[in-house]
Amino acid sequence: VKRDTPLGPGREFDAIRALRAQWGAIAEGLGDDAAVVDVPDDERLVVSTDTSCENVHFRRAWIEPEEIGWRATMAALSDLAAMAARPIGMFVAISVPTGWRRDLQAIGAGIGAAARDAACTIRGGDLTGGSELSLTITVLGGAREPLNRSGAQPGDALWLTGALGGPALALRAWLDGSVPPAAARERFAKPHARLRQAAHLRAAGASAAIDISDGLAADALHLAHASHATLAIELGSIPLCPGARPRDAATSGEEYELLVTGPASINALAFRTAFGLPLTRIGSVERGPPGVRMLLDGAHVDVGGGYDHFLR
Amino acid sequence: VKRDTPLGPGREFDAIRALRAQWGAIAEGLGDDAAVVDVPDDERLVVSTDTSCENVHFRRAWIEPEEIGWRATMAALSDLAAMAARPIGMFVAISVPTGWRRDLQAIGAGIGAAARDAACTIRGGDLTGGSELSLTITVLGGAREPLNRSGAQPGDALWLTGALGGPALALRAWLDGSVPPAAARERFAKPHARLRQAAHLRAAGASAAIDISDGLAADALHLAHASHATLAIELGSIPLCPGARPRDAATSGEEYELLVTGPASINALAFRTAFGLPLTRIGSVERGPPGVRMLLDGAHVDVGGGYDHFLR
Repeated sequence: VKRDTPLGPGREFDAIRALRAQWGAIAEGLGDDAAVVDVPDDERLVVSTDTSCENVHFRRAWIEPEEIGWRATMAALSDLAAMAARPIGMFVAISVPTGWRRDLQAIGAGIGAAARDAACTIRGGDLTGGSELSLTITVLGGAREPLNRSGAQPGDALWLTGALGGPALALRAWLDGSVPPAAARERFAKPHARLRQAAHLRAAGASAAIDISDGLAADALHLAHASHATLAIELGSIPLCPGARPRDAATSGEEYELLVTGPASINALAFRTAFGLPLTRIGSVERGPPGVRMLLDGAHVDVGGGYDHFLR
Repeated sequence: VKRDTPLGPGREFDAIRALRAQWGAIAEGLGDDAAVVDVPDDERLVVSTDTSCENVHFRRAWIEPEEIGWRATMAALSDLAAMAARPIGMFVAISVPTGWRRDLQAIGAGIGAAARDAACTIRGGDLTGGSELSLTITVLGGAREPLNRSGAQPGDALWLTGALGGPALALRAWLDGSVPPAAARERFAKPHARLRQAAHLRAAGASAAIDISDGLAADALHLAHASHATLAIELGSIPLCPGARPRDAATSGEEYELLVTGPASINALAFRTAFGLPLTRIGSVERGPPGVRMLLDGAHVDVGGGYDHFLR
């Protein structure tokens, strides 16, 4: 474990000191201009950056400060999961408006809890002012053979982790001024990056993966374009969060499940036993122009353009 | 050079496509969940993240969109310079309010120009909405022996690159409603990360370095704390931007010069010849409690707490 560099005085550094004290051992070597990060010789470095911004990705009235930190961290880590990478470290840039300063420690607690959950050290960051709360989290991971979006092959099966539609239900309730069902709220507020699941699927022969943070329909289309293939999805096969409809499953964004292509022979029961999470075959990769065909009970369904962040 | 991953449809992806087209060869492999980045075997990975936010770090009326992109990129790269690291790649997260959308290409042009100037590829990013323009740039570099803040030794000389006070003059003019002198404005709007200079100083025996983006007084104090030493600085020795006073040199922030400790024997003339930039001995590292003594013409000067970002 790297020693922290002693910090000079100043309000910004008092805030950093407080975060560092709260994070304890999950934060490492903070305080220099930059961090030195070691990547094992037999792994390739995988990097992604992800912003979570008040009034774009969440509203203050909906979730707790600790959940804001957790969610932003898991959203960033989810991109490592999509590449089947193991987390190595993260960098946290936070813009904190005056009205959020008293919540910074709680936001930091959520970041720290998510980092611990994913065994990912916090290696640096930046703290600035701003008019809206915004967290940009950059994650570094390592993978011997990173999984990408472009490896899907005609004949592959299409697999999905988890159950969908919860975040859509929660958002619909909040935007209607009502209280979302607890399970749907939890799906929005406390997502989990599917890191261990991705490593398992990689080992089981997965050929491509994407996380479906922009919704299944939109992200399936990205995977189809990247792999130059057609994806055929049977909406009726998708496990749903209680209260969600099949169309919700296609368009619900802020989901952090994985869409994975690979052998039809992957053992879904063993997956569920290992992770307490469904793994469901929802379709196939076909030869054809880049695109997605959605079927419900055998009929073609047009779900529209997919999910755009709810307040943009 | 990595092939870009084909992107699916959507407004966000149209914007990413346009940026990618503008960046050309300096952008590499954009479009997957995360980027795979190769670090040479004989180098250690150095990482830093830096946010540049409207109304905190700049105002729209002051500088052009292209300068905003350049400046944010160079500010991030400056942290690699402080570690004597060679840029490997960068990740660009931008929050773009509706009123800034038409400027996104110009902002991207500035980012691209700075990336090319530093020979640093753009490897990924994130584009979201927001109420204020905000750029968070994460830079990755490689260094055989990264330089940090904690290596200063009593007896070392204190060296400074460049001339100070320009950003302070520019800010003072803008906040007074007047037009800053061209040279001072240029120092604020078009900083240069001292990457090659840092590599040169590292090879010449530098023991510690910090960039002085928070101002010389504040950042000297950070270096003093990190190295458990006293820094003695003669303000009168600091090269000044035309119109700036020695006190401006101590407190002016948004400077991207380097404060470096190392042998008194470093050849400043050779440095100036190589880089067209002054290298000036401005003081010494002394045994003593962590702190900074500022002297002007032999008398002790208290410059106050240093620079806090101008609008916080």
